[in-house]
Amino acid sequence: MELIKNLQWRYAVKKYSDESVSENKIDQIIEAINLSASSCGIQPYRLMVITNPAIRQKLAEGSFNAQIHASSHLLVFAAFNTITSGYIADYVAMMEEQRNLESGALNALKDTLTPYFSGQTAQQTAIWSSKQAYIGLGTALIAAAELKVDATPMEGFNPELFDEVLGLSEKNLHASVILSLGYRDTDNDYLASLPKVRLPISEFSKKID
Amino acid sequence: MELIKNLQWRYAVKKYSDESVSENKIDQIIEAINLSASSCGIQPYRLMVITNPAIRQKLAEGSFNAQIHASSHLLVFAAFNTITSGYIADYVAMMEEQRNLESGALNALKDTLTPYFSGQTAQQTAIWSSKQAYIGLGTALIAAAELKVDATPMEGFNPELFDEVLGLSEKNLHASVILSLGYRDTDNDYLASLPKVRLPISEFSKKID
Repeated sequence: MELIKNLQWRYAVKKYSDESVSENKIDQIIEAINLSASSCGIQPYRLMVITNPAIRQKLAEGSFNAQIHASSHLLVFAAFNTITSGYIADYVAMMEEQRNLESGALNALKDTLTPYFSGQTAQQTAIWSSKQAYIGLGTALIAAAELKVDATPMEGFNPELFDEVLGLSEKNLHASVILSLGYRDTDNDYLASLPKVRLPISEFSKKID
Repeated sequence: MELIKNLQWRYAVKKYSDESVSENKIDQIIEAINLSASSCGIQPYRLMVITNPAIRQKLAEGSFNAQIHASSHLLVFAAFNTITSGYIADYVAMMEEQRNLESGALNALKDTLTPYFSGQTAQQTAIWSSKQAYIGLGTALIAAAELKVDATPMEGFNPELFDEVLGLSEKNLHASVILSLGYRDTDNDYLASLPKVRLPISEFSKKID
């Protein structure tokens, strides 16, 4: 399977070359992430795609992950803090439009989702939306690998700093997880030549027949 | 890109046909999930692959998702509740072995990870490990789509019931998210013919150059 080959090819790059990823490839990666599944189908996260060097330098402050600035692109998966009734109304209206339904045809869905999310604490919603972003991260890693673009998923960053520098809080978002993109510097990345480590299948999974 | 075509093909199936997915395809999907990235690379979740009808009937009790029992296979992503020093020691020993390193060569990694995880609350670790499982879920959806196997990711299940029926708690695991696999019943699934709904790229993502 193509996917297995691509997953075997990828690794979490520690050192990137200076080569940039083309905008065409970046756009394909973004499109793939946007096509990812999410719970209730309401895509409760947004994606910042950052090349600006000054902003990336600021974001990297205090992190051990140099890839935040030393790579071609940085993707920030920013998850919603709350799911407001307004967001649900807008999303459901978009569903109706994209499915050529009459306005109001999906009122029942709206009336289910609205109290469900308003009954959650902010912490519950933030965790939930962040998990959906991780599905998108899974897609992004595979999209990059198919295009032979290297990537490094990272949790080691300062989320408060990201929220501040990128103005996420005022958009009801928070930085959930980040991904650098670029091309591996094979000669200078100690990890480039090391075998991938994974559990034996028999330990990772169990069939219950 | 193959991936984008596969993502456009898939949807969250509501009604499955009676056709079973071959074990060969299931094994490829499991292998792909096992190859997914995880934070610190330590794969803090396990996968249960369930076909047993009596167990699936029990798991479906009280859920609005009939796909829990009415599909070919059910995958349960079970995330660790805590990351013990023993788990880290075993995993690091496996890393050394798979990378042909001397025993003890990765002691520094072990000595970084152990206090990091012992300093987390059980809730923090459970959320963290669950997020890693969602990366695996993203992979699973793509693996299934490449094999033209249909799938339904689900959060609408009773996690306590799953933990009890599958004996997860005693393995230090909890049910994080589940995925049914099978083949769409095109004639009887209202969703099969509806267009996929997604945000415009300009609303989903923002480039900061």
